[in-house]
Amino acid sequence: MLEEPTPAGPTEQAIVVDAMGGDNGPAVVVAGAAAAAAALRTPVILAGRPAELHGLIAGQGDVAGLLRVAPAEDTIAMDEGALASWRRPRSSVAVACQLVRRGQAAAVVSAGSTGAVVATARLRLRSVPGLLRPALVVVLPTQPRPTFLLDAGAIADPKPEMLLQFAQLGVAYAQIAHNIPDPKVGLLTIGAEPGKGNKLARRAHELLAAPPPHNAPPIRFTGNVEGTDLLTSAADVIVTDGFTGNVALKTLEGAMSFAAGQLRDVLGGTRAARLGAVLQRRGLRELRGRLDAESYGGAALLGLEGTIVIAHGASSPRGITSACLLAADLVKGQITERIRERLGHGRGGHFLRRN
Amino acid sequence: MLEEPTPAGPTEQAIVVDAMGGDNGPAVVVAGAAAAAAALRTPVILAGRPAELHGLIAGQGDVAGLLRVAPAEDTIAMDEGALASWRRPRSSVAVACQLVRRGQAAAVVSAGSTGAVVATARLRLRSVPGLLRPALVVVLPTQPRPTFLLDAGAIADPKPEMLLQFAQLGVAYAQIAHNIPDPKVGLLTIGAEPGKGNKLARRAHELLAAPPPHNAPPIRFTGNVEGTDLLTSAADVIVTDGFTGNVALKTLEGAMSFAAGQLRDVLGGTRAARLGAVLQRRGLRELRGRLDAESYGGAALLGLEGTIVIAHGASSPRGITSACLLAADLVKGQITERIRERLGHGRGGHFLRRN
Repeated sequence: MLEEPTPAGPTEQAIVVDAMGGDNGPAVVVAGAAAAAAALRTPVILAGRPAELHGLIAGQGDVAGLLRVAPAEDTIAMDEGALASWRRPRSSVAVACQLVRRGQAAAVVSAGSTGAVVATARLRLRSVPGLLRPALVVVLPTQPRPTFLLDAGAIADPKPEMLLQFAQLGVAYAQIAHNIPDPKVGLLTIGAEPGKGNKLARRAHELLAAPPPHNAPPIRFTGNVEGTDLLTSAADVIVTDGFTGNVALKTLEGAMSFAAGQLRDVLGGTRAARLGAVLQRRGLRELRGRLDAESYGGAALLGLEGTIVIAHGASSPRGITSACLLAADLVKGQITERIRERLGHGRGGHFLRRN
Repeated sequence: MLEEPTPAGPTEQAIVVDAMGGDNGPAVVVAGAAAAAAALRTPVILAGRPAELHGLIAGQGDVAGLLRVAPAEDTIAMDEGALASWRRPRSSVAVACQLVRRGQAAAVVSAGSTGAVVATARLRLRSVPGLLRPALVVVLPTQPRPTFLLDAGAIADPKPEMLLQFAQLGVAYAQIAHNIPDPKVGLLTIGAEPGKGNKLARRAHELLAAPPPHNAPPIRFTGNVEGTDLLTSAADVIVTDGFTGNVALKTLEGAMSFAAGQLRDVLGGTRAARLGAVLQRRGLRELRGRLDAESYGGAALLGLEGTIVIAHGASSPRGITSACLLAADLVKGQITERIRERLGHGRGGHFLRRN
């Protein structure tokens, strides 16, 4: 499936980047992937139109030798949704998933439309044994350490049992991607007491508070959290259904951009205010970064046999590079094997012993 | 039920304030209610412990003559939830609702716990004919005009038909409280296309897009909106279930307080930055106001036979006064009658014609 014979080395650890995904075109994606290949000192595969990609690769200097092409003539536009995964079996993201399915790569990175990437990955890749549904995890910029929200939009109508699994996925992710040994898990709902929330949240609370099923390791459940707790480090991992999670994430993004806009008005409002802003230059630049949606980092789709990282559609080369480095961390940390264990189906666990 | 005989005048238009509700004690509530009575030039009733209230009323100068007391020996603490409405039939908010039920007042204003106020009002007051469930509406500080979000937390698991009614409640509210003649209604969901969202949102979309049932007037439905649209004036009225609405509202509050905290760090970080902040004094004060949760204003519970306005628990006297003025506007605009009409049960409408 790859154009060139892959060099000696662990291709089952390779990252394949959807070179055609994102708002900014393949040049930005290739530049970001090249920087990742240089940092990781491993080959990175680019899925997309060879004619376009070869020209872009040639412009990457020494790193060009680390970039491979997986030909994919079709692309999914940013405004296409989940249905595109069926209509476009030869899209760049579908080809990338196929490489993972065939063991020629371990992870997919895409800045394409979240709906289309999630649907394509679910269609092309197997789930981890015992998993009911995969979940999308996003990183919220809390201090001093980040908070992980899932599901951020993969499954709009999950069952309570799925939220229990989301907690296990989130714990594995927090441990591997951010070295948090024993993450606290909270349930996003309305009101702090156990009986609060809708039916789904009330039942999920019972499951999260009970001993874990099978051989799954216990969860450090800290109870209910509210929308006000998303940015306060009340929990490391916050679980919710994909509908609520997506609304909350988009609400955060909207509020941050509202706050940034209001701040811009204040700082540019009068001559004195503009002068004041000059004095605050460095701090304001940092603040703008924190209020910027892109700083939330890539999302990851967890629970499939293969790692999927979805970069922000408007990613700069740096955003693509970060997404590749995250994917490499997840592969190195054996996220899939850890998730198997956490679902009670790891080596020596429930699933294998029954066979 | 009132201590003193009410003076001549439209007592069925009077406002009764839950004097014991809120984080800051009755002194703050009485001061706010007194300012409202002065502004409205009508009597305001205070429900609460007479011994405490008489002392506070005596301190209000000329306005004291406009303040009445409805004795209520019991109170609901801020950390008590919905169950308190059953346990405390003589709480200040229950007494306030009773006055409305008996026609001795038209509106209740409380800064008590939202859960307890909503539950007490639902227990003590009738619903408007044809209404399936009441909804809590909150005002979001969009520019140039506000956006109304409902349900913000009254009903965690509504049916799709209830969301259709929430749209009618929101339209009536926007027309009366903010003079928006023909408000645009959006449905909060994930993804812009009609088929996006969870089951509830997809079915609610169909109902909102269809011609209205009974004699209900048409709704100007503009389709799906996302979390990012809550502060962009994409719609005047945004409907959702109470679970999602409450999470979104709390997320907004959390994000605003996060942004305000980050801004404080930047402005106080270095001597130069502090000097810069002095130059921006006026703009920053305004910005702080806009990022402050209290600026979202009081919430109103819509759909009951009587007007209920819930002020922020941490309300200052000014917050209580604003809530009273909002209640007076809603009473004057005949919100209950308008809601009856919008549900197809107004005078001459479906309901009465069948009788």
